[in-house]
Amino acid sequence: MQPVSARLFIDQELTAGLVVRLEPPQAHYLHTVMRLRQGGHVAVFNGREGEWTARLGKFGKGWGSVELVEQRRPQADDPGIGPWLLFAPLKRARIDFLAQKATELGAAVLWPVWTEHTAVDRVNQGRLRANAIEAAEQCGRLTVPEVRAALPLGEALAGWPDDPATAGRRVILCAEKGAAAPIAEAAAALRENGCTEVAILTGPEGGFAPRELDGLVDLPFVTPVGLGPRILRADTAALAAFACWQAVAGDGRQPPHHRD
Amino acid sequence: MQPVSARLFIDQELTAGLVVRLEPPQAHYLHTVMRLRQGGHVAVFNGREGEWTARLGKFGKGWGSVELVEQRRPQADDPGIGPWLLFAPLKRARIDFLAQKATELGAAVLWPVWTEHTAVDRVNQGRLRANAIEAAEQCGRLTVPEVRAALPLGEALAGWPDDPATAGRRVILCAEKGAAAPIAEAAAALRENGCTEVAILTGPEGGFAPRELDGLVDLPFVTPVGLGPRILRADTAALAAFACWQAVAGDGRQPPHHRD
Repeated sequence: MQPVSARLFIDQELTAGLVVRLEPPQAHYLHTVMRLRQGGHVAVFNGREGEWTARLGKFGKGWGSVELVEQRRPQADDPGIGPWLLFAPLKRARIDFLAQKATELGAAVLWPVWTEHTAVDRVNQGRLRANAIEAAEQCGRLTVPEVRAALPLGEALAGWPDDPATAGRRVILCAEKGAAAPIAEAAAALRENGCTEVAILTGPEGGFAPRELDGLVDLPFVTPVGLGPRILRADTAALAAFACWQAVAGDGRQPPHHRD
Repeated sequence: MQPVSARLFIDQELTAGLVVRLEPPQAHYLHTVMRLRQGGHVAVFNGREGEWTARLGKFGKGWGSVELVEQRRPQADDPGIGPWLLFAPLKRARIDFLAQKATELGAAVLWPVWTEHTAVDRVNQGRLRANAIEAAEQCGRLTVPEVRAALPLGEALAGWPDDPATAGRRVILCAEKGAAAPIAEAAAALRENGCTEVAILTGPEGGFAPRELDGLVDLPFVTPVGLGPRILRADTAALAAFACWQAVAGDGRQPPHHRD
């Protein structure tokens, strides 16, 4: 198989011979960062039709095109659908970071939810998606997480057990206080009970409001978990919970299938 | 107990009545960020003598002092000695991030190690320590991780089994390829065997060199682990491995003892 040194997400149907114009940032990245030249090869994926080898046509710092050659990995090669992440929006560097890291760790959905103590007042959904795409390109995924529009937490959870999209999906609540099983124990117990679909829910820097936390814990589809004895920043908590779920009950148990 | 809204690390012996001059950044932080005023209270720790309540004297944006009142938590209240992190140095934002997150997750030692593919050529040890202190203040720890001077990886490991400081401490190698147990499985097995002291070792953005990885895997005190099917960035890998170890075999199994 043709070795490649870069991967691009291209939101089009992929077929052999297709010529795709590069977006200016893509061309810039391939030319200036990766130092690729005409005739070089990259991998391309669209989230549905596997990964394809593509050959670079003429291109420069901000323009150019690639021509699709052949499929190199089937879509089934992707480890598949990971946990969702519901998170209170954070300030700029931390929300960028969170979108990137959750994507690397296999998130299927990134869903910002407004909580009582959330300290930012808008979410740039396009920027979240750009971060998710960049991380998906880098980490070898064949999909990009779906980025949902921000909703108040109550609205996001209101239809949870009845909505076909979320029914049966357990919410793992990262709780800073109150009764909660340690996450490794909770994840192992859910795995034993056949639970494979979860959404990890994390609060803002100030934590959940006490009555908000009480209300969440009372919901029948919520499992509160503890993340140990220290106070974690909101982004650390989200990433730690995500990594632990994947390691104990998710696709973290699969071997690396890259660099071999 | 006097409620406090900020914590300060002060590297001095702590006794009741002691008056400590604030460093300009500390005074700035308390005055401008936390909006505290004379007579307000903060918590103070030095890594050895627990946490103390301190009262703010006269102070302004870049000057001032605090007077120690009484001990509020004994040193034994700290969850104790966590894993070490040996890591190939990364570029600025990522190494800052790594030092902060590893501190929040309970690292006892932060030790930069040069590997074959490491792409940065110096480490600012003072900056690493400043990041560790800031994170320790924020997360409620009673200690600050020891930040070691950077060494070539081979030198750091050369005396490992014979050095009293490292003898018996298992090295958990985050391996991007080759035979490696998934981290949750490896951590549970080590825990079953009574292993409580580990050092987590992560490579640079380009990964370990093949012969470097082969050499590491051959060392009798090294356990290679896998972190799942995707290619994680170096900082993500370190954070994920650290969080998983703490959750499965470390103090992540303790309940939160804060915000109650």
